[in-house]
Amino acid sequence: MYSFKDDYSEGAHPRILEALIQTNLQQMKGYGEDEYTREAIELIKKKLKHRDVDVHLLSGGTQTNLTVISAFLRPHEAAIAASTGHILIHETGAIEATGHKVLSCEVRDGKLAPNHIQAVLDAHTDEHMVKPRLVYISNPTEIGSIYSKGELEELSRYCRSHGLILYLDGARLGSALCSEENDLELSDLGTLVDAFYIGGTKNGALLGEALVICKDSLKDDFRFHIKQKGGLLAKGRVLGLQFLELFRDDLYFELARHANAMAKLIKTEIGAAGYRFFTHSPSNQIFPILPNWLIAKLQEEYAFYVWAKIDEDHSAIRLVTSWATSEEVVSALREEIRKAARN
Amino acid sequence: MYSFKDDYSEGAHPRILEALIQTNLQQMKGYGEDEYTREAIELIKKKLKHRDVDVHLLSGGTQTNLTVISAFLRPHEAAIAASTGHILIHETGAIEATGHKVLSCEVRDGKLAPNHIQAVLDAHTDEHMVKPRLVYISNPTEIGSIYSKGELEELSRYCRSHGLILYLDGARLGSALCSEENDLELSDLGTLVDAFYIGGTKNGALLGEALVICKDSLKDDFRFHIKQKGGLLAKGRVLGLQFLELFRDDLYFELARHANAMAKLIKTEIGAAGYRFFTHSPSNQIFPILPNWLIAKLQEEYAFYVWAKIDEDHSAIRLVTSWATSEEVVSALREEIRKAARN
Amino acid sequence: MYSFKDDYSEGAHPRILEALIQTNLQQMKGYGEDEYTREAIELIKKKLKHRDVDVHLLSGGTQTNLTVISAFLRPHEAAIAASTGHILIHETGAIEATGHKVLSCEVRDGKLAPNHIQAVLDAHTDEHMVKPRLVYISNPTEIGSIYSKGELEELSRYCRSHGLILYLDGARLGSALCSEENDLELSDLGTLVDAFYIGGTKNGALLGEALVICKDSLKDDFRFHIKQKGGLLAKGRVLGLQFLELFRDDLYFELARHANAMAKLIKTEIGAAGYRFFTHSPSNQIFPILPNWLIAKLQEEYAFYVWAKIDEDHSAIRLVTSWATSEEVVSALREEIRKAARN
Amino acid sequence: MYSFKDDYSEGAHPRILEALIQTNLQQMKGYGEDEYTREAIELIKKKLKHRDVDVHLLSGGTQTNLTVISAFLRPHEAAIAASTGHILIHETGAIEATGHKVLSCEVRDGKLAPNHIQAVLDAHTDEHMVKPRLVYISNPTEIGSIYSKGELEELSRYCRSHGLILYLDGARLGSALCSEENDLELSDLGTLVDAFYIGGTKNGALLGEALVICKDSLKDDFRFHIKQKGGLLAKGRVLGLQFLELFRDDLYFELARHANAMAKLIKTEIGAAGYRFFTHSPSNQIFPILPNWLIAKLQEEYAFYVWAKIDEDHSAIRLVTSWATSEEVVSALREEIRKAARN
Repeated sequence: MYSFKDDYSEGAHPRILEALIQTNLQQMKGYGEDEYTREAIELIKKKLKHRDVDVHLLSGGTQTNLTVISAFLRPHEAAIAASTGHILIHETGAIEATGHKVLSCEVRDGKLAPNHIQAVLDAHTDEHMVKPRLVYISNPTEIGSIYSKGELEELSRYCRSHGLILYLDGARLGSALCSEENDLELSDLGTLVDAFYIGGTKNGALLGEALVICKDSLKDDFRFHIKQKGGLLAKGRVLGLQFLELFRDDLYFELARHANAMAKLIKTEIGAAGYRFFTHSPSNQIFPILPNWLIAKLQEEYAFYVWAKIDEDHSAIRLVTSWATSEEVVSALREEIRKAARN
Repeated sequence: MYSFKDDYSEGAHPRILEALIQTNLQQMKGYGEDEYTREAIELIKKKLKHRDVDVHLLSGGTQTNLTVISAFLRPHEAAIAASTGHILIHETGAIEATGHKVLSCEVRDGKLAPNHIQAVLDAHTDEHMVKPRLVYISNPTEIGSIYSKGELEELSRYCRSHGLILYLDGARLGSALCSEENDLELSDLGTLVDAFYIGGTKNGALLGEALVICKDSLKDDFRFHIKQKGGLLAKGRVLGLQFLELFRDDLYFELARHANAMAKLIKTEIGAAGYRFFTHSPSNQIFPILPNWLIAKLQEEYAFYVWAKIDEDHSAIRLVTSWATSEEVVSALREEIRKAARN
Repeated sequence: MYSFKDDYSEGAHPRILEALIQTNLQQMKGYGEDEYTREAIELIKKKLKHRDVDVHLLSGGTQTNLTVISAFLRPHEAAIAASTGHILIHETGAIEATGHKVLSCEVRDGKLAPNHIQAVLDAHTDEHMVKPRLVYISNPTEIGSIYSKGELEELSRYCRSHGLILYLDGARLGSALCSEENDLELSDLGTLVDAFYIGGTKNGALLGEALVICKDSLKDDFRFHIKQKGGLLAKGRVLGLQFLELFRDDLYFELARHANAMAKLIKTEIGAAGYRFFTHSPSNQIFPILPNWLIAKLQEEYAFYVWAKIDEDHSAIRLVTSWATSEEVVSALREEIRKAARN
Repeated sequence: MYSFKDDYSEGAHPRILEALIQTNLQQMKGYGEDEYTREAIELIKKKLKHRDVDVHLLSGGTQTNLTVISAFLRPHEAAIAASTGHILIHETGAIEATGHKVLSCEVRDGKLAPNHIQAVLDAHTDEHMVKPRLVYISNPTEIGSIYSKGELEELSRYCRSHGLILYLDGARLGSALCSEENDLELSDLGTLVDAFYIGGTKNGALLGEALVICKDSLKDDFRFHIKQKGGLLAKGRVLGLQFLELFRDDLYFELARHANAMAKLIKTEIGAAGYRFFTHSPSNQIFPILPNWLIAKLQEEYAFYVWAKIDEDHSAIRLVTSWATSEEVVSALREEIRKAARN
């Protein structure tokens, strides 16, 4: 049984483990003050062509989101997210547990646009309601779509002119930036958003996310927040070494490109077989709509999530590829689909 | 420059890295539902000779403390800790950030006893004050002392008869249980305390603590709390594999015994040289009181914390040994002390 | 300019002020331990024909809601409310500020039914999401509708069989219970819901709400929560005396009946004039749909909220009556409407 | 049995009730936007000779303290208070419930001085500890002592030069400012502290405290915080009218002077009888040390708290006077003491 359920089913890219082994017995300072972490941070800043940012390495996505949002907001301020937003549904109320409401916007394709946010602002007019203050987006979104540079620029302009903080959850940022439809560069993010994180866990690391804070007024005392929320690892080197390895050359992007390529191969085959898709997702998650009999057949050999019921006979499924998805596995799956389609 | 600053300066015990490599490309379920985590949990339960406990693997000590305490307490309830308690001082208000006061008890040797707690209960009599409800202890304590079985039994009886939850922070539990003065067994904890954690980070793991919840009424829904506080790693296998390796045979205890033995060697030498100690610490942290000229001399080759000023000419320092401290390094340090003492 | 904006534009019913004056210089214990508060509580219990409840007097609705919900829920648990629910929108994130998410249900008439709640339960299946635990309803709802006894019984059965706490916000409870369509008695609430409050502020008191906790497991230590959240008034007598006066005879219900009667008179006139209503609201808030020219005309002499735009030429407005609304004012308004309708 | 237990045993000064009655049926806007509240605020600003402050009326002291401190601090920041501080002990962890630690300073006379604060700053040096940020003082303190102008100036200079917010709890501010040892004026506070409140509840109001925010950067959005914490009364007029009455002429100070005078009469008598005092308290709380037999005798006719055991035969008691304490009662108490002393 091969799993297309997610992009964190395997361990880490072998080069990362190798780096851990090579440096294992060197003594290093704790809590992210080691040389590897410093080096990784410098490397990320360099990739951002924009040295005036602060970079912090944290252990996971929910940890990063809750630390960021509680650090950035005052008690009466709220976050805005798409109705599919990860913080809205899939983090067990982590944001609310730090005291902040998350306001939901109904969107079709997972992406927030100024008009969605404007509607929220229009509805929150006085001190009897929370004050919307931070816009949370993901790229790619939870349903695989990606933001174009134009869309992000528009969002960025809107947020700045309305005093809103723009925060981008990049759990799968590699996949977005390596999408063939993408026209954003990593360094654009340093100027377009106020903070974002570069996801390691879902792109080859054992664990780890690199948070980048771009806006000056949000930088102060951030390590206090990481420590207070339990995210400051004693052996911070574990995070430093991984990001060092991912960004020393372009391994991070190479891994993401591979995941995307594998998704594309599957997608093309499914399209050729005449099936449609639930969402337009040019990243490493695809959502084909398949007849239930085919889904049942595929489930004999593959694990994946059934995402949504479409009609009595069809459902959308989610297939996720990763840096570790092999071409052999993808070929076998394609063959399966091809055969099925012929019947 | 060799560091005796802490027990997390190196990476992980080589067997742990080996285990990560051997299993790296196996696909596993996420969020701690993988087979390695299950196996590790079964192993820990077996060592506890007490299968009716729940075990969860978390990423770090502060994360564990804040998740536990916020899960166990109602909003008006408070924790009690020794004045040297880690949660009281060194976790950036992590407990208060979840809404709970930590009440401090002045103690001499880092250890809480029923009379300290009784004084707190006596002072908290009505609804204008918080309700003391959870007793937080560490073994070993922050200053290296350990609880005897008798002391822990007494504390346990007291807490049970007063409706208090007894929680033990075991960041360095291995060192306590392997101390030559120790008469507690790991399995005793399962009956004497309501919850405790077995520290991995400070005893050979890259990261990870194994939380054991003994009291039935505290077990419900605990995974919700871990997720909400950001502690549920996507690749939970990383924690599972480490504890599996630490407890498969007695590696965990072997590492702790080594750390203690190295501390003992240094301690004996310092004692033989005629110096005294700031606290009685039969574990892997020792606190010798040395003349300032000797401290300055040692600082030329070793890194360590100066803990407290004793008088104009003397200070207490803290030396911490670990699974990775080599006998060679210890011999060299002993020789240095011996020479110095002769002068 | 006469205001129909709300039911808290005037001070208190004169009998309440009289009671404050008569007792003013008597010395009383503080913090709600005075004799008047005790007497008021006994009186309310008696009206509830159900002495096994706890009653607490608090200063306002938001204060009561946040104190109740944070006291009743564990950190990972959430409240469920209708999309129009007061706690969802109009309390500046007070519930989230205590750490809890409020899950929204789209409903038409302001009322929650088991099917709405079931949909929320169906969508919250594991520890990656909050655990729905408390159902928040208002009677009357924020749009003036009321629950029938049958509806409340059904909701009560559903909540009990699903382990959910049922909490009723009775900011305008008097108006609901005195509605001519009502078939619930105050004493029914003691058996059908787990907690509710009897609103004083909007029915003749200067300030004050009487919280009734019916379910045993929710009663413990409640005064700690009131104090912690800032709701324990030093001069608790101010609340005690008011509820004593409101429930000594049936003043509370008399005042609510008057408010309802005034609303009914206006409603009848508007209906007779051929206009329809935005919601079915047999309580002291009505929402007529009027032509914009008429609204403009009424605004010359009356203050009220324009609630919703219906089409280019029509809007719904909200008119609220109270214990203090005089028949003269209502007659004048009716005459205005009658005249307008003739044009 | 006459009570000297506290200064909130009676209702309100009769002029306040009279004002409530006179205005009772006037329609007013809710939530503190009524004309009386505006007028009261203007009056307070005028008394402050410093119009560039914001004034808000809240319902009680704990409510004010928790709203202020949670609004002013970021999550990792902490308050500093004297070991006798009200927020530290007597508010059921209200401050911690909003996420903030309160750091305690051992002081003798209830008053904080720069050296106490400096010791806290010295001990909090990095991100593993909370960041001390707000200094909480009370005037008079919880044990009746008062700050001189010089002391407050020194504290003010210190806080400003160290980036600390200085907040003064004025639950009994009238008594401090009317003390014969006082050299502070109300208007001095507007320049010396960053925020403070003028206590109404303990000086003749039914309930209510007037919060004054002096520092510009702390003013923004404060009404959101009041609403979120449940402190925005629907009938804000109740607070407005009371402060209007208290400050229209100098009633507020007159009442405080009376309370102080009554305390002084008792104090003088006790001193003349040869007894000493537990603290130096030139305000409306006094703490005589009396022989236990005399305490027992007084308890036959008077209620008061026994504050501390001094030796086997003596204890300190607390006697509190108020605006409502009559000279007759005081005379009778003095006579009792005089007689007792003769025996």
